[in-house]
Amino acid sequence: MARNITILGAGLVGSLLAILLKKRGHEVTVYERRPDMRGLNMSAGKSINLAMSHRGWKALDLAGLRKDIEDLAIPMYGRYLHQEDGNNTFQQYGTNKEAIYSVSRGELNKKLMTLAEEHGVTINFEHRCSSVDVENNILHLDLPDGSSKTVEADLIFGADGAHSALRNSYVRMDRVDAQHFYLKHGYKELSIPPDENGNLQIEENGLHIWPRRNFMMIALPNTDGNFTCTLFLPFEGELSFETLKTEEQVQKFFNEQFPDAVPKMPTLMEDFFGNPTSSLITTFVAPWHYKNKSALIGDAAHAIVPFYGQGMNAGFEDCTILAGLLDKHGDDWDTILEVYDQMRKPNGDAVANLALKNFVEMRDKVADKDFLERKKIEKELHRLYPKEFISVYEMVSFSHIPYSTAQSCIDAQDKLLQEIMSDGDFFENIKQDAYKTKLDSSVTTYYQSIKDLDFGG
Amino acid sequence: MARNITILGAGLVGSLLAILLKKRGHEVTVYERRPDMRGLNMSAGKSINLAMSHRGWKALDLAGLRKDIEDLAIPMYGRYLHQEDGNNTFQQYGTNKEAIYSVSRGELNKKLMTLAEEHGVTINFEHRCSSVDVENNILHLDLPDGSSKTVEADLIFGADGAHSALRNSYVRMDRVDAQHFYLKHGYKELSIPPDENGNLQIEENGLHIWPRRNFMMIALPNTDGNFTCTLFLPFEGELSFETLKTEEQVQKFFNEQFPDAVPKMPTLMEDFFGNPTSSLITTFVAPWHYKNKSALIGDAAHAIVPFYGQGMNAGFEDCTILAGLLDKHGDDWDTILEVYDQMRKPNGDAVANLALKNFVEMRDKVADKDFLERKKIEKELHRLYPKEFISVYEMVSFSHIPYSTAQSCIDAQDKLLQEIMSDGDFFENIKQDAYKTKLDSSVTTYYQSIKDLDFGG
Repeated sequence: MARNITILGAGLVGSLLAILLKKRGHEVTVYERRPDMRGLNMSAGKSINLAMSHRGWKALDLAGLRKDIEDLAIPMYGRYLHQEDGNNTFQQYGTNKEAIYSVSRGELNKKLMTLAEEHGVTINFEHRCSSVDVENNILHLDLPDGSSKTVEADLIFGADGAHSALRNSYVRMDRVDAQHFYLKHGYKELSIPPDENGNLQIEENGLHIWPRRNFMMIALPNTDGNFTCTLFLPFEGELSFETLKTEEQVQKFFNEQFPDAVPKMPTLMEDFFGNPTSSLITTFVAPWHYKNKSALIGDAAHAIVPFYGQGMNAGFEDCTILAGLLDKHGDDWDTILEVYDQMRKPNGDAVANLALKNFVEMRDKVADKDFLERKKIEKELHRLYPKEFISVYEMVSFSHIPYSTAQSCIDAQDKLLQEIMSDGDFFENIKQDAYKTKLDSSVTTYYQSIKDLDFGG
Repeated sequence: MARNITILGAGLVGSLLAILLKKRGHEVTVYERRPDMRGLNMSAGKSINLAMSHRGWKALDLAGLRKDIEDLAIPMYGRYLHQEDGNNTFQQYGTNKEAIYSVSRGELNKKLMTLAEEHGVTINFEHRCSSVDVENNILHLDLPDGSSKTVEADLIFGADGAHSALRNSYVRMDRVDAQHFYLKHGYKELSIPPDENGNLQIEENGLHIWPRRNFMMIALPNTDGNFTCTLFLPFEGELSFETLKTEEQVQKFFNEQFPDAVPKMPTLMEDFFGNPTSSLITTFVAPWHYKNKSALIGDAAHAIVPFYGQGMNAGFEDCTILAGLLDKHGDDWDTILEVYDQMRKPNGDAVANLALKNFVEMRDKVADKDFLERKKIEKELHRLYPKEFISVYEMVSFSHIPYSTAQSCIDAQDKLLQEIMSDGDFFENIKQDAYKTKLDSSVTTYYQSIKDLDFGG
């Protein structure tokens, strides 16, 4: 039975979900608080580029959008690590040249909106949902002319981001648990444009990182030859946004910390003082749904920090899983929303924690020799034991293995790799048959400890 | 310089704080969302009785209220444990007959309100604060006639409980962290009235507990001979509020679980089906203050579960500490609120965690033989080593040692007591000089590990 479904938010997840629901015959209405970005210059300065990986592509396949987006996507095969001494190391992500893809959030969002409308979805822009009467499924909407109205829906999806109105309405209810916290670090968008001849100034097919222990800068490629840089730095303390108040302070900081990048950043001062310093939130809430009436999806359910490049991918995977449940359970929305919550909540929790952990890895450990060695060994282990050993990074980025499973493998992988690395030079050791036998046994022990986890379909 | 100070909430903490601020010469206005309880019958059924302990009394001393409240307070020297077989064990709380005091929340609150008014504080009842403009210190108030108004204040204290409007306004701000969660257990108020001759049905001077592993009932004495009982039970599951729907089910459950209490509960059915089933929330928020403009206090800063009897005591201690800072720092509110936050936030966190942990102790461990033995040993240790060894329970209930220090001693005390108990019968062992020497050494080791913690003034 077709339902009258309302989606809050026409962002990436809201627009994709609208398409998937409309394709299944439901009436879909979307309310979006911002104006239609397709008629505007994008508001720059607050969007970290997206890194589309396996989970994202799978959802785009469902929407029939892979080809359209491939044209906008730049493959990144690994990390370019810019050391303080000006040296540069390349660290490949996958064992088989897998890539994550730099995609413009704006362009992807515009395409998803247009496709949703082509399928017959109505998107109402500049309709801000202020709150939801969760018991009765009534939305309170503020309109562009300053007036308000209420709308009733059979079913509501909150795809309205970290500060979701539906989430906030859940949070006020008895026995709903919630948590949110901010990092001590903020971020600011900067840029490395093409040079005067229009040539790229750094290598295109990688994610650039300037790891500096307690802070870092990253850069991702865009199709126009511009790299979007993001500086992640503590809000307060000795080296912090708080202490970078004058052009002189900023210049000195960049000269000292990012000497190879400074000559490539002609608009550094303009960007630094023109763009906002933004905060980074992580949210948890339980439950994610209310009876057969409403549910949270994407950032509204699990806002995470951007350091694993999984925010959009996790939200799109929510859509994939939900679409699968729709196909399986028809219009039994009690079951659909209950199972969706049970399946996705542990994975939302896991990806939030993985993303927090990866910040430490990106800004600190990637500058570490042992860590780089470990990454090489992990690749070799996967080559030698393709079924038994998949690194956590590859599970997260290049598979559909549940995030919670990836998280559960961390300790066992740490133990295995510590054991291997304490034996000395791995690539010398494995030339010896006796060591290979020992390694077989260690990997078997590892595999026994994780093989009963849920590795998905 | 006298300030125009606004307090949200005329509950226990708000009323006490009003008195302490007014005594220091400030203009104090209180807004309370409920009607004046002094003109009404108290709304029964949702108030767990208070257990006043050292921290509470100290704050009442500051307000000059100890004598008034002593008349209403019933000392409880220990726990009466009602076992399933009908047996009854008494377990003394303190080493020196220290007591916690059963006090009626309503009577205490009324006295505090009246005293506040006598000092010249204005309490505006039925003024519900819906939100606070934190930057500009403007309150939005809903009035009894359905209208609204805004009020500006030099300084605002949010003493408005677990669902505080000031806390909620903080939580919506950038870089404010917050968490709240509910227990899987709810609670329901019941009662054990005097018998037909007006005699008490159970011993007056103790806290009665019916520990049943995953749930429990407790009873606290009132001055009218009535005991307020509270049943703590899971909301869902085999033995739960969900499965107690009919009189037959309730009767069967009580007959099986609390056979000694049932004959003393003539209004059981009326109470059970007439009183609400309420939830138990724990909250964390950071920071607790905003510049020199506002701060949270009491449950608004740290709503905790009632199992250590410390909710009101912790809120009153917030007042004691704040009053001390006022005396020390004059009208330097930047310093006062900053230091208040730094001093109290770790203690708010600690008492929240102690309270959660004590639920397990009360409902489960107090029925355990080893646990009862441990409590006896702890008392003897304190007698033998009064300076070196104070049990966590005594630190929390019978001292002004910071909660965070008490919490930090848990692991070291667990280790010491495990060691002692693994040596066999303690009270036999200490008759031997050799064992006493060994014990001296163990206690010294314990004391070395904790002596540098902050034990307060």
